Order: sequence, then C-alpha cells, then structure tokens
Amino acid sequence: MAGDKARVLIVGTGGVGTMAAYALEIGGKATVTAVMRSNYDAVKEKGITIDSIEHGHDIKGYRPTEIRKTVPDVVKEGIEPYDFILVTTKNVADVPPTVSDLIEPAVTPGKTAIVLSQNGLNIEKPVVARFPNNPIISSVSTIGATEKEKGFIIHDDTDEQKIGPFSNPGVSAEVAEAAARRYIDIYNPNGKLTTLYEPDVLKTRWRKLVYNASFNSVATVLRMDATRMRATQHVVDDLLKPIMSEIIAAAKACGVDLDTNLPEIVVFNDPLEAWFYPSMAQDILKGNFIEAEVIVGEPLREGESRGVSMPTLRVIYGLLKAEQVKTKEKKGLWKPEFGPGHPYKGE
Amino acid sequence: MAGDKARVLIVGTGGVGTMAAYALEIGGKATVTAVMRSNYDAVKEKGITIDSIEHGHDIKGYRPTEIRKTVPDVVKEGIEPYDFILVTTKNVADVPPTVSDLIEPAVTPGKTAIVLSQNGLNIEKPVVARFPNNPIISSVSTIGATEKEKGFIIHDDTDEQKIGPFSNPGVSAEVAEAAARRYIDIYNPNGKLTTLYEPDVLKTRWRKLVYNASFNSVATVLRMDATRMRATQHVVDDLLKPIMSEIIAAAKACGVDLDTNLPEIVVFNDPLEAWFYPSMAQDILKGNFIEAEVIVGEPLREGESRGVSMPTLRVIYGLLKAEQVKTKEKKGLWKPEFGPGHPYKGE
Repeated sequence: MAGDKARVLIVGTGGVGTMAAYALEIGGKATVTAVMRSNYDAVKEKGITIDSIEHGHDIKGYRPTEIRKTVPDVVKEGIEPYDFILVTTKNVADVPPTVSDLIEPAVTPGKTAIVLSQNGLNIEKPVVARFPNNPIISSVSTIGATEKEKGFIIHDDTDEQKIGPFSNPGVSAEVAEAAARRYIDIYNPNGKLTTLYEPDVLKTRWRKLVYNASFNSVATVLRMDATRMRATQHVVDDLLKPIMSEIIAAAKACGVDLDTNLPEIVVFNDPLEAWFYPSMAQDILKGNFIEAEVIVGEPLREGESRGVSMPTLRVIYGLLKAEQVKTKEKKGLWKPEFGPGHPYKGE
Repeated sequence: MAGDKARVLIVGTGGVGTMAAYALEIGGKATVTAVMRSNYDAVKEKGITIDSIEHGHDIKGYRPTEIRKTVPDVVKEGIEPYDFILVTTKNVADVPPTVSDLIEPAVTPGKTAIVLSQNGLNIEKPVVARFPNNPIISSVSTIGATEKEKGFIIHDDTDEQKIGPFSNPGVSAEVAEAAARRYIDIYNPNGKLTTLYEPDVLKTRWRKLVYNASFNSVATVLRMDATRMRATQHVVDDLLKPIMSEIIAAAKACGVDLDTNLPEIVVFNDPLEAWFYPSMAQDILKGNFIEAEVIVGEPLREGESRGVSMPTLRVIYGLLKAEQVKTKEKKGLWKPEFGPGHPYKGE
C-alpha cells in the first residue's frame, strides 16, 4: 500500500531532479510529487523521455506519480506530510526567493527531512534557521544529467552521491543519521547506484569547492571551456591553482584537512579534451543567475574571517558579483543609479 | 620652401593620428606622410571629413601631404629622412610586430625623433634598445577623437598632451629636450591647443595608469561601461579602488609619488552618466588585441619585482592574458594543445 512508501516532493526538475524522481520510483519505496515549471505541459502531455547509462537508453513516457506547477501548501491543501523534500534547484542565495522561502509551504515542522542536492558551502544555514526541528540532508552529486529539451533527459555520467546529515542543533544526531540512511535506502534500494553514506558533510563540500570555486568561477568570468582553460598557462598558474590553494587553506582554517597536492590533480582531473563549460559558465551563457555566493562568497568569508589570505578568490568574487548585477539588469531587477554625492547606490 | 618644414611620418591614423596630422599641417611647420591601411582607399578618393571642437565642425576633403599603404623604407626608397615619426597605434607588446619592427624601415639612426603617443609603461624600452641614438618622445594624450567610419573623424574632447623626452642613455638630455620642444612647436605653433612640455614622463605615465589599469582592464574583463562600473559597489570597492591603490604603491616603489587619495577622486572623475566603454573594452568588443602588457603587465612586474603586493592586478592580468589567448584563437594564431604528460602547451 502507498502508506509504506516514503512521500517525496522534488523541487527542481532539471536533469538531476528528474533522474532522482525516476530512481526513487523504480526503487519501489517512494512516491514522487514533482514540481515542474517550464516543462510541466510537455511532461503532462507525453511524459518524460530518458536516455540513461544506468537505467536504460530508451525510457519513454515516464511520469512521476504526481506533477504540479507550484510547491504544495500542505496545511492549506490538507495534504499528507512529505517525508522528504529533495531540492535540486540552483542555489542563488543573493536573489529571492531563498530555498527556505520556496519550500516552506511544503515542510511539516519536525517531520519532513529536507535533502539539499546543491553545490556550495553553508547552504544549510538559512534552512536550519527556518526549520530548526527538521533533518537537513546533504547530497553531493557528480551525476551527469542534462535536460536537452523539455521532458527529454540525457543521463550520461553515473549517479554518484555522498549523502549525510548537515549539523542541525535541533535534531539529534541519531534522527539526522537515520533520515539520511533512509533516504539512501529509498533512492537506491538495490545498490545499483553509488549512494554513499558520508558522515563528514563539511569535508565533502570543501573538497568539491576545490573544483567548483576555481573552474566554475574562472570559466564564468572568461566564458572559456575547461579544456581551453587547461591549455592556457596563465589560467592554470595565475588563476586555477592559486584559487584551489586558497580554498584548501580556508578549509584547513575551518578544521577540514584536504590534500595540499589537490591543485596538481584537480587541474587535469577531467579528460583533457572534454571541451565542456563548467555548470556556472553554462548558467551565465544561458543568461541565468549564478551560484556566486555559495560557491565563492561563503568559502571566502569563512577563510578571510579566520585570517586566511585569499586574494585570488576575492577578485573573482568581485567579478562574479558584477556579473550577477549584469544579469539582474537584463531581468529588470537593477539599474545603474547614484545616491546623493554620487556614491553608487547598487550592489 | 618645403625644406623649412619638419618631415613627419604618422603610423596609426585612427582618430588620434588623424587629428595630429591635421594639427601639424595647418600649423604650417610640418609636412605629414600618413600610413593608412583600412582607410587608405576612402581617404584617397574623397579626403578626410572632420568634426572637431577645436578646429571646426565642417572640415571636408583634408588630405595629408602624402598618404601611403606601408611604412616607407627610407634607405631603399631613397627618401629624405623623417624628422619625426609619430606612432599612435595600439601597443600590443605580446603580439608581433612590435612598434620597433613596424617603424624600423623609416627610422634614420641618430636623426629621426620617435614620438610614442601610446598608453602604458615601459613602452620606450624596446624602442631605445633598437634605436639607441634616436630621441624618443612621450606624448600622454587625453584627446577624444574617434574614427566613426573610414575617413570620418569626430574630435569631441580637447587635444591635451603632456610631451617630454623618455630617458635614453644614447641621447644627451639637451638633444632629447630640444626634440620634444620642437615637436610641441610644430604641433601647436599658435598655442591654440594644450601641448605641455612635461619633464617627468614617468610620473605622467604612472598617473594615467591609475585610471587605465583599473577602469580599462576591469571594463574589459566584465564588458561593462564606466557608468555601470561606478554604480556597482563590488566593482568600485573590490576591484577599481584596490587596483588604483596597488598602482600607487608600485609607483612609489619606483620613486614616483602619487597622491594616495587618487582612488577616491579617479573613481568619480568622469561625468557619472557618461556610459562609455574605456578604450581597452572597446578593443575587445571589436575583437581586437588589448594592450594588456603595457597597461597591466609592466606596472605589475615593476611593482612585484620591488616587493609590492599587487594581488588584485595580478588576477586581472591573468584574466586579460586569457582574453588575449581567446582573441589569438579567433584570429587563427593559437589553438588548445597539450604537451607530453599533458601540461598546457600555450600562453
């Protein structure tokens, strides 16, 4: 009966969210409600087509148990509480609505576990503050999954996730761990995918920042793909490696020990001639907001507040903030204005 | 008779070079040979149209005494030596040909004075090395003059130049000063324009870098105009002002004292709502090479070699070098390649 199954709400149904919906439902231990925006009509009409290296190349007509255009209001709508809310949206902390604003109507206090499958640092802090008695779970994913067109997903790199509880003072360690382990169980009941329980969420996130804060942000400023970045001495020596070392130093100041040889490894981590744009660069090329705060701003603040010198990332941060201002202007959310005595009156 | 007049060759006939040709010839003390490339045919056919705030708004059919498509070879062509060569091209030190390569056939050793009307630092060094017995003259210009279309110049900001001799060990101070003063005399015989003799060339150049190294380079990386940059707090506080302070510190280490309050002044120096792109940003928007070495690379090396910390400019330099690589690739001069063991094999 449905009552045995975990009720999962997924907010953010691009490639990652859709593959999560599919994994959760074929596992047989969850029912999924997916909040769809731009792709709602396409999926309503003909379902989702998936070409997946792990689930099959010819999946057609998949429909989550329920699809909706808006985040449900469980109280007003009298909906049974969700066990999990999986959030796979971009985390653009400096542009409303926040993740907490977005999911709030669907969260049952003290009950719903909130899974943040998003990049960056300190993403749980405002969520913990808003929902102090709910388990907050971290998923650090390296899946490759892209929505090529509305309702058509290419899943071309394996679904690997490190999943564990964020620290939340209002939730006991046992409850937090149990929620994370239950999520792993319903996501991957047959062990077909690579969903690892990861107790050290913070380390996992700093480790991923070694790549994201460097490759993503420099690619964004330069509109340059990863292969060309690697092929350019000034990019590698003056930008990528210094940023990686600054992230490692900041992590260390926060009590997280990363291998100091990581820059040498991470620069040439991907296939040399992969030619892809890191995701933040894809965002800016599409005219979307970028995750500058959680990928660059937060590690910068964590490091600098502990006395770590981070001169490279500091400059990159300023540039990314300016890029965000340009995007705001394009979306009609900013215009150049000056206050009295002409100081800037802006971001 | 023509023999009384100074023979001037002008290399680089955009807005600045064309207005120089006009000023030199209407002054009556010089004859100009102009080397024209893209605009040769248009000027040959109908002359140059000029709309000038200082010389008149309706100048039509101006033709320099001689126009040519190539730099003359004075020896091979048996041409009378030039008294002056005025160079107003962009100084792209990292992409051949160099200024010295370009003008060499037209230089008569020990005779021709070379006037560099270009931005940046250390631009005279390779020229002095190549022509050790020729006076090298610095012009730091704030003229506003733009070639709107081939053979049509808008001159909309006054022709103000600070002119003085670069240090050149092979030329006596008297000869160097005399050459600079003669150039001022033939350029502005009636005192109508603002051509000041400036003995302290180095200070003038560092002073101009306070603006150019900051506004030009950040505008280039961000593709953002000066007004929007001023209206954005992160651009002003995290990028422009730190770069200006680094330039002032580097200048000081080189023995040049600039006002440490300059950042406050220079940020809001232009009319707030001027909306223009600084010239380097215009270059990159047009797909041209940028003067990254003389505007950013040289002051950075001068400062850092003297122990000055210049973390902001260091990052901006890395980004500008990457922009230069992108332009090289577009022009077919670079492609991403990797050496054995996959280190980059590039710039």
